[in-house]
Amino acid sequence: MGWQPTRQGDRTLQQQIVTWITERIERGDWVAGTKLPTQRQLALQFGVNRSTVQQALEELKAIGILESTIGSGIYVANSSWQALIKQRQPNWQTYIDTSLHKPNYHTIQLINEYEQRDDFIRLGTGELAPNLLPTTEMEASLKELSLEPRALGYSSPQGSKQLREAICRYVQKRGIQALPENVCIVSGALQALQLIAVGLLEQGSIVFQEKTSYLNSVHPFQSVGMQMIAINRDQQLAQSLAHKKRKRQAVFYAVPTLNNPTGRVWTTEEKRQVYEACKQSRIPIIEDDVYHELLFNEDSPSIKSMDDSGQVLYIGSVSKTLSPGLRIGWLIGPTTVIERLADIKMQTDYGSSAISQEIVLHWLQTGKYERHIEGLRHELQQRATFVEKLLNDNLRDIASWEQPKGGFYIWLKFHAPIVDKAFFIKLLQFNVLINPGYIYDAQDTQHIRLSYAYATREQLQYGVEMLCQVAKLSEKKAD
Amino acid sequence: MGWQPTRQGDRTLQQQIVTWITERIERGDWVAGTKLPTQRQLALQFGVNRSTVQQALEELKAIGILESTIGSGIYVANSSWQALIKQRQPNWQTYIDTSLHKPNYHTIQLINEYEQRDDFIRLGTGELAPNLLPTTEMEASLKELSLEPRALGYSSPQGSKQLREAICRYVQKRGIQALPENVCIVSGALQALQLIAVGLLEQGSIVFQEKTSYLNSVHPFQSVGMQMIAINRDQQLAQSLAHKKRKRQAVFYAVPTLNNPTGRVWTTEEKRQVYEACKQSRIPIIEDDVYHELLFNEDSPSIKSMDDSGQVLYIGSVSKTLSPGLRIGWLIGPTTVIERLADIKMQTDYGSSAISQEIVLHWLQTGKYERHIEGLRHELQQRATFVEKLLNDNLRDIASWEQPKGGFYIWLKFHAPIVDKAFFIKLLQFNVLINPGYIYDAQDTQHIRLSYAYATREQLQYGVEMLCQVAKLSEKKAD
Repeated sequence: MGWQPTRQGDRTLQQQIVTWITERIERGDWVAGTKLPTQRQLALQFGVNRSTVQQALEELKAIGILESTIGSGIYVANSSWQALIKQRQPNWQTYIDTSLHKPNYHTIQLINEYEQRDDFIRLGTGELAPNLLPTTEMEASLKELSLEPRALGYSSPQGSKQLREAICRYVQKRGIQALPENVCIVSGALQALQLIAVGLLEQGSIVFQEKTSYLNSVHPFQSVGMQMIAINRDQQLAQSLAHKKRKRQAVFYAVPTLNNPTGRVWTTEEKRQVYEACKQSRIPIIEDDVYHELLFNEDSPSIKSMDDSGQVLYIGSVSKTLSPGLRIGWLIGPTTVIERLADIKMQTDYGSSAISQEIVLHWLQTGKYERHIEGLRHELQQRATFVEKLLNDNLRDIASWEQPKGGFYIWLKFHAPIVDKAFFIKLLQFNVLINPGYIYDAQDTQHIRLSYAYATREQLQYGVEMLCQVAKLSEKKAD
Repeated sequence: MGWQPTRQGDRTLQQQIVTWITERIERGDWVAGTKLPTQRQLALQFGVNRSTVQQALEELKAIGILESTIGSGIYVANSSWQALIKQRQPNWQTYIDTSLHKPNYHTIQLINEYEQRDDFIRLGTGELAPNLLPTTEMEASLKELSLEPRALGYSSPQGSKQLREAICRYVQKRGIQALPENVCIVSGALQALQLIAVGLLEQGSIVFQEKTSYLNSVHPFQSVGMQMIAINRDQQLAQSLAHKKRKRQAVFYAVPTLNNPTGRVWTTEEKRQVYEACKQSRIPIIEDDVYHELLFNEDSPSIKSMDDSGQVLYIGSVSKTLSPGLRIGWLIGPTTVIERLADIKMQTDYGSSAISQEIVLHWLQTGKYERHIEGLRHELQQRATFVEKLLNDNLRDIASWEQPKGGFYIWLKFHAPIVDKAFFIKLLQFNVLINPGYIYDAQDTQHIRLSYAYATREQLQYGVEMLCQVAKLSEKKAD
């Protein structure tokens, strides 16, 4: 923290804390309205008694630098002394409040925050456990990498040609015929969605999606003014699309293989039906296919493999299989679209990490990638079986679920509508972090996205038990 | 290209080309209006006679699949046959034309395109030459990296804590006091600008900048509807700012140390003057400081080091010093701002490459980074001296320039107003790629940004000679 107490009697320690806090406010790190850490946290941080902290805070309150609200904590005050500083400082909060991009939902901000803490059990996270990541093999593969000078330079707009060639060969197994010019390397699937949002759609465009959708928990389209419309996949799909589209531009977003968050796999027939319906209305499909390699059993074809009219924008990534930290994904589509989006990518971040691209190329070329995935599938299957047993032992009476077909998730459904923010917060108090269904569908109060991919067996056991306990409490309250 | 001719007489080769082209159109890779490669390129690509290609193209034109415009090339036709396909295909061009994000200027698109070609001399590029990048040392350092499993996982919103700590220590030498919570790791400086644009500013906000500005060649602010206002740094700066700002939100963008593209270094007094003027009007300053480590002689303080009111958002990066391919930069500012922008970064790309972050951390911690920069400065100085001699030998009569103080660039000024798009294109014909002044200031017709950082000595010599030749031709034409 850049602060070391020098013990010269309590009075001095208190004074040092006062100075430390004042400096942060003067320097503008803490602006008016900033909430201070708790007294306990400050005491821990400074290695002093809580009473010393309390005295320092009282002193600052007395001179109007801090103020407290009962039951809610201590804040940097908007007082007369503070006013002096404020006159000199830009009013950052106004800048933030009026800016273009909306903040994440509070629950998602909390998830992002608590995912950083090692003392929390991550029961819903969309990430592989550290021991499922091939860290040792990755370290070894770094030793084998021979870099061309080009690997350290800026990447070309669409990304490394060699990597794009390797990806074309790789997706052939998925029935996809693509040339390197049909591929754009992106910094993960989310960036592909961002590029599509700003590079292909106009304000007010429609994004069709299923009711429960990963897209509701991130905002690549919402933040630039698109309309999200939930649609049922049924016999009337083509008519519904045509009816709702009217004069607007539209796209259809789908995760048809191992859906996030539901884990479902559309049948080949269902995939074809959506493809034909969209083709009829000339609505492009965004096929988010980042989980398909994790299918436990037989493969399920991609919609892109059915595409004979340049209708489907296909997204793949190594984030769910090899390493999210590499930030490498790919977008496959017609050249016109790819060149356009690559142009925007150059204006956004000048391309993805070249080192990351080299690493992914190495793993694809040497066959390490596919070998790793084979082992990973096996591990995930074992974890899934373990969690299903836990659920059977603990939650059979109050919840239901489908056997997972692959990937990370079980879409756990409680019989009673108990999954609200209070439920989420209550579990936090037991150090259990969940992904509640309402971040994927605001009306949903019954589901959670349970991930067997991250937590250890012990954590999963404790987590499911807590889940059971809190669920039963919530059910009682609801009675 | 995924195509291998099988020789079965010329007729068959021709037919194969016809099929190959038709398939691309059917698959939607080439949409109506797509320009075909030249006959020469196609012949080279297929390894056939140009006449074979010509016959194939004629066949496709005859049945209305292709059409040609005299002197401009062959295009995929919007004909009756094509109409059949178009009915099935989304009208991608309409999607692109009406989308939110504007395309790059044509000259910049050409620069991005020709920078990929090894047969062009890059006389203006903002990138270190391959032999100035520490490729061997980087390869060696990869062997020394020991990865924690965490390094392969998703990064925290603000980026690796250890890297942020290392950056705090590093910028201390630049007079900047920051704590890890004041730092957000970004995928290069350009992403920092993007985040500020969408995370802190409202539509119609004002971005003050110097008349000639790097910002005019990229569009992080323009693409989201900000007003760019050029402003003179003079005694009246404070009044001008206050007058032009009126009721709007505003920021001041500056590259005060080794400016891009002019190479200038503001004096300490000039820096303080801008800081005080902005402080008076409560206008935040974005200090883009990515070149400062490349100052040949004494250091020049950062504006951030003068900041006692949380007024300055400071941007640093390793792209100009170590490797642009790593895509790692940092943004330093008040916690409120940093947390906000990190939240948006999580919604944009889920953080920067963790491997890249590990590598930068390693180079900072071991002192390799600073040792490398020391050598690099020396190399750049030698290159600068070499190019100055070339300019003296070739251009003394028709252009002027200042001795570079560091970095990559000489801001070369021709006496006559000859630097227009025709000048740019003319040099392309000699395989010389320049960065003309008009991409940094649309009114400028006298400057080019001459970079001594990329091309080899031979290329620099040839390039400057061509520059001289084309300039003299242009001068004559202007007479």
